[in-house]
Amino acid sequence: MNRDVQPGATRLDSYVDRYAARTRGMTASEIRALFSVASRPEVVSLAGGMPNISGLPLDVVGRAISDLIANNGPMAMQYGSGQGDPVLREQICDVMRLEGIEAHPDDVCVTVGSQQAVDLVTRIFCDPGDVVICEAPSYVGALGVFKAYECEVVHAEMDSDGLVPSALEAAIVATKTAGRRIKFLYTIPNFHNPAGVSMSLARRPQILEICRRHDILILEDNPYGLLGFDSEPMRALRADESEGVIYLGSFSKTFAPGFRVGWALAPHAVREKLVLAQESATLCPPAFSQMAVSAYLAEHDWKGQIKQFREMYRERRDAMIEALDDLMPAACQWNVPTGGFYVWLTLPPGIDAKAMLPRAVTARVAYVPGTAFYADGFGSSAMRLSFCYPTPERIREGVRRLAGVLEAEMELRETFGAQLPGSTHGIESRGYDAPNTDLT
Amino acid sequence: MNRDVQPGATRLDSYVDRYAARTRGMTASEIRALFSVASRPEVVSLAGGMPNISGLPLDVVGRAISDLIANNGPMAMQYGSGQGDPVLREQICDVMRLEGIEAHPDDVCVTVGSQQAVDLVTRIFCDPGDVVICEAPSYVGALGVFKAYECEVVHAEMDSDGLVPSALEAAIVATKTAGRRIKFLYTIPNFHNPAGVSMSLARRPQILEICRRHDILILEDNPYGLLGFDSEPMRALRADESEGVIYLGSFSKTFAPGFRVGWALAPHAVREKLVLAQESATLCPPAFSQMAVSAYLAEHDWKGQIKQFREMYRERRDAMIEALDDLMPAACQWNVPTGGFYVWLTLPPGIDAKAMLPRAVTARVAYVPGTAFYADGFGSSAMRLSFCYPTPERIREGVRRLAGVLEAEMELRETFGAQLPGSTHGIESRGYDAPNTDLT
Repeated sequence: MNRDVQPGATRLDSYVDRYAARTRGMTASEIRALFSVASRPEVVSLAGGMPNISGLPLDVVGRAISDLIANNGPMAMQYGSGQGDPVLREQICDVMRLEGIEAHPDDVCVTVGSQQAVDLVTRIFCDPGDVVICEAPSYVGALGVFKAYECEVVHAEMDSDGLVPSALEAAIVATKTAGRRIKFLYTIPNFHNPAGVSMSLARRPQILEICRRHDILILEDNPYGLLGFDSEPMRALRADESEGVIYLGSFSKTFAPGFRVGWALAPHAVREKLVLAQESATLCPPAFSQMAVSAYLAEHDWKGQIKQFREMYRERRDAMIEALDDLMPAACQWNVPTGGFYVWLTLPPGIDAKAMLPRAVTARVAYVPGTAFYADGFGSSAMRLSFCYPTPERIREGVRRLAGVLEAEMELRETFGAQLPGSTHGIESRGYDAPNTDLT
Repeated sequence: MNRDVQPGATRLDSYVDRYAARTRGMTASEIRALFSVASRPEVVSLAGGMPNISGLPLDVVGRAISDLIANNGPMAMQYGSGQGDPVLREQICDVMRLEGIEAHPDDVCVTVGSQQAVDLVTRIFCDPGDVVICEAPSYVGALGVFKAYECEVVHAEMDSDGLVPSALEAAIVATKTAGRRIKFLYTIPNFHNPAGVSMSLARRPQILEICRRHDILILEDNPYGLLGFDSEPMRALRADESEGVIYLGSFSKTFAPGFRVGWALAPHAVREKLVLAQESATLCPPAFSQMAVSAYLAEHDWKGQIKQFREMYRERRDAMIEALDDLMPAACQWNVPTGGFYVWLTLPPGIDAKAMLPRAVTARVAYVPGTAFYADGFGSSAMRLSFCYPTPERIREGVRRLAGVLEAEMELRETFGAQLPGSTHGIESRGYDAPNTDLT
């Protein structure tokens, strides 16, 4: 504890010399401080990924939970099984059937949100230095887990049809050639966070085939799969491969995140390990939360509710795309997502999204710079825009403010010249990069 | 995935060659299968540590949670802060004040039960091979966490006044001399699980002094501190040392475990790391659970409820001690706990509690063999008996059955001679053991 602070040691943290090596991968985001400013009501936040749950029927939820307490209170308030509530696990199988998955409740492990599922899967598979292949860009929360377990992330390129098979294959081959051990491919096939694209149905068998051939486990993270705007849910990778895929689902976007109920569907032997890991991590996920979600599913037209959510998010997506079309400088590029929460926007050459963020927040609009979604510093010329939470009017106003900031930035650049090296890396242009063998 | 199973590989788990090294420390308890039998209603379980929450007023809880949904539903069902609900953290400070702790809500980190607090603290401090000093015996769930992080546990002896200062000092010195790095002392000062004893008030300053002098962080796990039968809560170690102690608390025993709400109170810099670890593990603990606990604390006489719990548990403790006095063979020894859930019983020489368990379950009584509470195979001649859950009548019946099994066992031993080497290790007799430097 170094109560007598040594020269050179920080005065702020007397434990600094005794943390585990893995804490070097647990660092607060550089933009965290900025986001506490960005959460002020006058700022339009296109940054957060909070689902908009204002449409949930509070009376229905209240009644379901009151009945739960009256009829099953002592069980809901007691310790439960480490694997999760058996009734809920059956209902989870019903939910997954919408994406073509036939599964047994005994292969489902309930987790504290699907974030914990990513954590537990990484915990049981990854030693320090192991490689996880991720799309480029990928979900910031998963990248954080991989870092915290001292894994190395190798990115593989995406395009408008999702993960590019040849890029995946190249990443696998190069990583193996470098003598590194790949533990799994982490992919978000549907309405990708942050890229907004989906893996086309034509590509899915190709991705499965490559992973089968190279003996690579797939971690299929699917929080948004039921939130497509225009079509029926797409067939999950897990629907066509039960041994080589661990599938992660969540009620955070289809119902509500405050219960923290997600799950992993895993091959039987892996599921057994996940339950042991869950017992070590928490003894058991909260019985009350699980039975509350279960009661909601049993007593409410949850599919109808999801349909309402889809319409609400589609309206917001439309507002954002319309505003981008109307207001953004021509040199910007973005995709039109067909579901989920996010648009990925690529800036004109030379504009750095992270450097621009403080000026954007001053102009009362916030976004997440693209670098947050890469493990390797790429993404500086891109940003993630969320349309999930604000109203359509606020989205339009946010895009208007953002366009103003961007125009000022471009003007400045034109006046003073391109003194900063611009990055052109985005989902369209980014290639495969070799694994960093210096990782400690 | 080894779809083509290799000779010698298991057919049951095609992933067997690719799990992380830490999974070797995550093994299902040998007695797990037995406990699924032991959970049948005809078996009196003196094994589990489930709190008896039948006294909770379901109407009060139901009303508090209904009001929460009606008035604050959208917030309770949304993502919350990684550190936990600010109102609840203030209430947690009120709870800790009962044990002499003056703390700021900003130094509290809410966790998914205090089990997760043990997990997160170990995650941020322990590299593989680091040593954690634990009482002998110690809480099985904490030992599981330390194993899962590939730590080595060094046990230090207890007596009827709790952890023995000279044993602690000897363990520290021997471990340091062996060149091993001690990350913290894990202790349960009050109504110990499983030993049933408490660290005397006279000893607490001595333990603090030793840890200060050797620069050893203390992890003070205190789920039972408010459940004393005869006296006011004892002063926490944390009350007299804020920099060198991380204090863990829980609502699982003073309210209900099904919400999975526990907490860690930590020095500021450590707390920052804990929140980062929590965000990586779950994004945030469940807002709904936290606000439900918060509403219960605000709207109910929770101190009066704890008083009722104490009386209910005292009645059960009395029933167990009376039955042990009346029925157990004279050669057994046990302590009389002044709070909490557990009695630690030492068997006559030569009787092995784990070997006897199947016969006990056949006679419709269950307990936890002492070996579960040691990282090193000790404890075979001891068992933990829980009096928390069954009614006094069932406790008496359980002890009657156990005495019958034990007498039969002793008789058998007398007839056929002591062919098995008996263990005499228990909390009274067990000495300090050197760290195992072969740990991988």
